[in-house]
Amino acid sequence: MGGAREPAAALTINGSRLLDTIHSTCEFGKAHVYGEHPTETGMARLALGDDDRKVRLWFVEQVKALGCVVTVDQMGNIFAVRPGRAKHAPPIMMGSHLDTQPTGGRYDGILGVMAGLEALRTIHENGHETRGPVGVINWTNEEGARFPMVTMSSSVWAGSTPLETAWNCLEISPPGGSAPRSVKQELARIGFLGDIPASYTAQPIAAHFELHIEQGPILEDESQKIGVVTGAQAYNWYQVQVKGRDSHAGTTPMRARKDAMLAAAKMVVASNVVAHEMDGLITTGIFRGEPGSVNTMAHTVTFTLDIRHPRSSSVASMVAKCRQRFEEIATQDSERGVSVSWETLTENPAVEFHRDCINAVEQAAEETCGRLTEAASGRKLWRHMLSGAGHDSCHTSLRCPTAMIFTPTRNGMSHTPDEYCSPEDCITGAQVLLGAVLRYDAARDDLS
Amino acid sequence: MGGAREPAAALTINGSRLLDTIHSTCEFGKAHVYGEHPTETGMARLALGDDDRKVRLWFVEQVKALGCVVTVDQMGNIFAVRPGRAKHAPPIMMGSHLDTQPTGGRYDGILGVMAGLEALRTIHENGHETRGPVGVINWTNEEGARFPMVTMSSSVWAGSTPLETAWNCLEISPPGGSAPRSVKQELARIGFLGDIPASYTAQPIAAHFELHIEQGPILEDESQKIGVVTGAQAYNWYQVQVKGRDSHAGTTPMRARKDAMLAAAKMVVASNVVAHEMDGLITTGIFRGEPGSVNTMAHTVTFTLDIRHPRSSSVASMVAKCRQRFEEIATQDSERGVSVSWETLTENPAVEFHRDCINAVEQAAEETCGRLTEAASGRKLWRHMLSGAGHDSCHTSLRCPTAMIFTPTRNGMSHTPDEYCSPEDCITGAQVLLGAVLRYDAARDDLS
Repeated sequence: MGGAREPAAALTINGSRLLDTIHSTCEFGKAHVYGEHPTETGMARLALGDDDRKVRLWFVEQVKALGCVVTVDQMGNIFAVRPGRAKHAPPIMMGSHLDTQPTGGRYDGILGVMAGLEALRTIHENGHETRGPVGVINWTNEEGARFPMVTMSSSVWAGSTPLETAWNCLEISPPGGSAPRSVKQELARIGFLGDIPASYTAQPIAAHFELHIEQGPILEDESQKIGVVTGAQAYNWYQVQVKGRDSHAGTTPMRARKDAMLAAAKMVVASNVVAHEMDGLITTGIFRGEPGSVNTMAHTVTFTLDIRHPRSSSVASMVAKCRQRFEEIATQDSERGVSVSWETLTENPAVEFHRDCINAVEQAAEETCGRLTEAASGRKLWRHMLSGAGHDSCHTSLRCPTAMIFTPTRNGMSHTPDEYCSPEDCITGAQVLLGAVLRYDAARDDLS
Repeated sequence: MGGAREPAAALTINGSRLLDTIHSTCEFGKAHVYGEHPTETGMARLALGDDDRKVRLWFVEQVKALGCVVTVDQMGNIFAVRPGRAKHAPPIMMGSHLDTQPTGGRYDGILGVMAGLEALRTIHENGHETRGPVGVINWTNEEGARFPMVTMSSSVWAGSTPLETAWNCLEISPPGGSAPRSVKQELARIGFLGDIPASYTAQPIAAHFELHIEQGPILEDESQKIGVVTGAQAYNWYQVQVKGRDSHAGTTPMRARKDAMLAAAKMVVASNVVAHEMDGLITTGIFRGEPGSVNTMAHTVTFTLDIRHPRSSSVASMVAKCRQRFEEIATQDSERGVSVSWETLTENPAVEFHRDCINAVEQAAEETCGRLTEAASGRKLWRHMLSGAGHDSCHTSLRCPTAMIFTPTRNGMSHTPDEYCSPEDCITGAQVLLGAVLRYDAARDDLS
């Protein structure tokens, strides 16, 4: 990476068009009204569902209108690339995702893709010719909500997850109790099962930039506008199964019980103690007991653990501590005799983003924040930070220079219908995204 | 109640016919194979399902062959009455239930009805004329598993639950995600929506005897054969709802959480402490979290509490303690700010059975146990005991003299496929049932 060969183009995104785009496309999958304003509605646009199909078709139409070449790979990832002066160089991509949680909001993922589209529109309408190609990616099934594998398709692209594993992943709550469908079946059904391999070799990327809401309270607490994300904390997911004995709630003395429900509840409480001890995060998002009858003890309980820490080694320590405490509960506590088994769903080491991409974001943040009215105070309006969540960028960073940009999130709340990033902050974030891409493009030394 | 006017008829049930009846009718609804023998299979004969319909039709056919008059009331309770010398007196009934838990066994309820049928067959084939009418009842939806109201239809008969409340009760896990169906709809569908009021005034009973497996470990632990049940412990059921805030598992600091799942897990653990403090029983059989995604905290958790104690006042104290501890968790603990609400599903005070019925059971137990080979040791093979579970007899005891007979249960395990009462113990129990009924019949002083 050399120095900038030309000054960053002074292009300014169209803020109201960005906001219109975000909210008009949230008609595809809107759910969970929480206020009176038409935008005070959350989202339930589950990966590869009918609403996901609609927003994808809309997206493809929009980027084609900008002269983009659209490629859909075998995971349904959509690559929209606007050619640059150097026709055959790999593109700088602005990637995120259009799928949401079942009780999700209007910004997680959506802001990143729509800001990428707005950046392309701004480049296009200004007739700006980039040195290399520049484009937008919609990564399939980032949320892992319907198909329980988070950042599924960027992981396949990066070579971290085999294609067949992702294709065969089944939905967890099929509608109407029907047989669960696979990712591949649903890709085919909605018309997004492409024939290009989902791979960094088949679809190389020069650099990946992702604008995303912070999903935490730090920027808001510090009254800052932009997070320059230098990496992401490590996180592992597990499914823990506790097996006991189903027996009658009225006739089984406490001493004779092997109550999987009570044992599992104790494990959830114990995992929380571990999180506090290690200054990390542990969350149980799914907890199910079988057979599920008021007066019958559960014979089987299955629950998930989401374990996170800025250091990969600390995640490993937290897992080890949980395993030990759970084993103690299973062998020495009131329900001794229950069995515990662990299944690993995903393990993701801590990620460090690329210095060149971080530099480009820093410069764009400095410039954009410097123009905000809040800058009059002389206070610095951006900061470095670490991502608490996993993102598609964590996978791309294994295969190409990557960085992320965060915007403030009201009350730090995400994965909830009233997730919110103010219009001003969305616009600031999109402007930083465009600025970072143009700076990176200007400084590329891999172009002939 | 006068003294015995004639000696109890020396009738002996046909043990192998009883066992054949139990196991052949368990073909209707068998599930959950756990061993190699054809009878090593549990049951899933949910109330008012297709298998319940089949066993009901079979039952009606069998009792009609014995000359019984069959009445089906508005709750689908089946009354099969064999006339006695006094044609218009209320009958002595042997009642229990043919429905099972979703992962139930072959004895809970089923033994009581089939032993009643065997008793009628024995009376019939011996040409014995009882002084008053004698019969068998199949009570609808004792389990409360599919339709969440335990001992539903004996409760309606006793006037404790309004007919409309029971009729409108909806199934909890409709097949294939279809709209939940009501008890009344399902009664009509399977052809057991009778037109006789489900009421102790419309269908009076002289006395109610119920043979049932103990469902606990006491008889087995003491190597005894028969429990003469003098009453039942009090039990209340509640549904507790905890509401917190759904937010992202990776970006929400521990201090900023209102995690309904963690708070509910702490409540389940706290309720268990209360059970130990009060020497009672508390069980959580159902526990569900929403929205149910690995990396999203639950905004809502719903769980049940089944609270039991031999004294009604102690159940009230346990409830009060749980309410206080849960409130502390909701207001002072790590997840402070979550809300807790309680819904009462059922409240059942402790029950004392009728002295005359208990006497009849005692005498029959003394006689039957005295003939067992184990009696050679001179050890007493029956004991008084209290029922841990609720039974239809708890409701009938409000409206007619009632008692119950318990048989041993392997490992005290019930509401599980491998629930087991040995062939010998089933036969002993049925013989005690017949003996108690004949004694009570012989001693009736309400017959002209």
